[in-house]
Order: sequence, then C-alpha cells, then structure tokens
Amino acid sequence: MPKQVDHEQRRIEIVEATWRIIARGGFAAATMREIAAEAGFANGGLKHYFVNKDELLVAAFQRTFYRINERAALATGERTGLAAIRVLCMEMLPLDRERQVESRVAVAFWDRAASNPVLMKVHADSHAIWRHFFEQHLELARSTGEIREEVATALVVDELLWLTTGLQVVPLLDPRTTSPINQVRIVDTVLDRIRHLQPDPVAVPAG
Amino acid sequence: MPKQVDHEQRRIEIVEATWRIIARGGFAAATMREIAAEAGFANGGLKHYFVNKDELLVAAFQRTFYRINERAALATGERTGLAAIRVLCMEMLPLDRERQVESRVAVAFWDRAASNPVLMKVHADSHAIWRHFFEQHLELARSTGEIREEVATALVVDELLWLTTGLQVVPLLDPRTTSPINQVRIVDTVLDRIRHLQPDPVAVPAG
Repeated sequence: MPKQVDHEQRRIEIVEATWRIIARGGFAAATMREIAAEAGFANGGLKHYFVNKDELLVAAFQRTFYRINERAALATGERTGLAAIRVLCMEMLPLDRERQVESRVAVAFWDRAASNPVLMKVHADSHAIWRHFFEQHLELARSTGEIREEVATALVVDELLWLTTGLQVVPLLDPRTTSPINQVRIVDTVLDRIRHLQPDPVAVPAG
Repeated sequence: MPKQVDHEQRRIEIVEATWRIIARGGFAAATMREIAAEAGFANGGLKHYFVNKDELLVAAFQRTFYRINERAALATGERTGLAAIRVLCMEMLPLDRERQVESRVAVAFWDRAASNPVLMKVHADSHAIWRHFFEQHLELARSTGEIREEVATALVVDELLWLTTGLQVVPLLDPRTTSPINQVRIVDTVLDRIRHLQPDPVAVPAG
C-alpha cells in the first residue's frame, strides 16, 4: 500500500475506534489511552496520526457528517427536487444500526462543540451545506411545479433541519416513542404539505 | 429559616452553581471540586446535600425540565387548546438568555443520559408529561372545532417534540441561522397548518 494511503487508512481506523468507544460509553470514555487500545496501538502511538486529541476529535466529528453525505450522494443519483431532499433526510435519521451509531456519536459531540469554536465550525459548515442542498432542490421543485407557489423556502429548510436534528437525540433518549416508521412519516408529512397536489385521475380514492 | 427549607434551598443553590459551570465550560468542567467552589462550599462540603455526584447530576438535569414546566404553568393560566400548546413550546425554546442557559445545560446532559439509565428516565418521564399535555390540548382543540377533523394527534405531537428538541441544540451550535423570530415562526407555522380556518369577515386581506 502506498505510504500516503496507508497513513489515511490508519487515521480512519483510529476515528472508527473512537466512534466505537463513544457509542459504548459516551464522550467521557474516549480517552487517548482507550482509543489507542481499541485501535490496536501502543499508548502514545496515535501521535504519528493525530498531533493531539483535539485534532482527532475534529476528524471524528467531521466523519459523522461525511458518512451521511457519502451515502446521500450515492442514493440521490439523478433525483432532484423533493425526492432528493427526502433522500438526504433519510440518511440523517437514525433508522438502522449504522445511522443510530452516527447519531449517538454526533450527540456526544454537541456538549463539547458548544464550548469549542473549531468543533462548532464543523457543525455549522455541515449545516450550511445541507441548507444549501435543501434550498437548491426546493427551488428546482418550485421551477417544475412540484411544490406550491407560496411555499417559503427558508421556513421549510429550517423546519427540516431542526426536525432532523431533534431526531438525532429523541430516539436515543426515548426509543419507545420514536419508531423508524414514525420518523419517516413525519418527514413525508412535511414534504407532502408543500407538494403541489396533482390529482391522479386513475387513482381517485373510493368513497 | 426552618431546617428543612434551608436544606432544600441549599440543594437548589448547588444545582444552580452546577448550571453556571456547565453553561461556561460544558459537562466536563462540572467536577465536584469546581461545583463546591462555585457554590461557596469547602471541597467535600456538598456531601451533606447530595450523597454523590450522580444524585447531583440527576437533580441538575431534572431542573431543566422543572423550570420550563414552572414557567409554562404560570403562563398557560386559563388557556386551552392550541394557545396552551403554543405557551409550552415558547417556554421550551431558547428565546432569551434564561432559556438559552437551560438549553445549554440540557444539551450538555444528553451524551451522559444516553449511557445512564437514571438520566435517560428523567428525560423520558419529562417528554411523557409534555406528550400528554400536547395530546390533551389537541383533543380539546378538536372538540371545540379549533383544529381540523382529520389532524392526526400523534403525528403533531411527534413533530412538536422533535422540532423543539432540535431547537435546543441548533441555535447553540449555529446561532447565525436561528433567530428567535424564526423559531417562533416555525412553531406558529406548525400550529397554523392544523388550525381550522374560520375566515374573519372583518379582516379579509385586500387584493
């Protein structure tokens, strides 16, 4: 393996070890000693890959957004408008074990991020990207007549971001009240509300 | 001051000292030594009021919900239906400095709560109370014709809880995109959508 690739691969392994520790025991469990042991390094062996814990934490927080965006890009394909918006929302929600671990790790970072400008910027930058994606596809949806004329883009973007952020944490702390089915239904409810209803003459509901 | 009242008052002061430390430096800053110093006790002096740190943390997390409920009860007064629901939502949102501190403290607890069954129960119990309050007033609103017949109570309750939970954290980590005005507008948008529109013959919009 070329040296540079090897280095990057090791960094990812260390970040993934950090995730596993946080998912098991929360932010407090993620000491450099524990992370080194989990990643199979001697104590102090992480220094070659991350200059300090802060740099590792930034990489671990960034990866929560990166993973969502990577899956969403793949799943979006040629979709545009509301279909593209729905794909991104689905990748943000903790609907399966993989996404539940991502949520657990993201939530673990929020307390630290609120007191740390670098982590706060990681969060704000990623939200800016999502905001832009939602805006772009809402405008596309408006231009094709998929959404109603009077829909206020900014309000819909806010609602989607705040709802999906709430859904990082509520299923974690109150799993009995938040099934994956309900999470999907709420996103669909928000999207259906703004959709321009085009009655299908074939599928008129009976009664 | 009677001895029992004095004891309870000291506990509240210690909890409030814990809040100030968390609001300044996050969860990690809240060591028993720091809390004792902030509350004006000698190191080890908190033992008379809280048997250990876990008991203090439970009290501090509970108080984030207690404060919201106390203000909401006062502000609700005789209001019912959507007006009562709106009052509770407003008390949950970080619209002023007091409520921003509450959000900051609540968010700080989520990581720990996700790995601690006692703290998780504090969260779930409080959400169950809010859920019940929303359900009760939505049913009242339905019985008086304030909301449309077809509104699905459970979905509205989910949406309000997930949205207000998201709004504990987004303004904290991305304050530029989340003004208090937008937060209020989103809650009003959700409530307006389910409201039974009764056109006011006096106030027909011109044009």
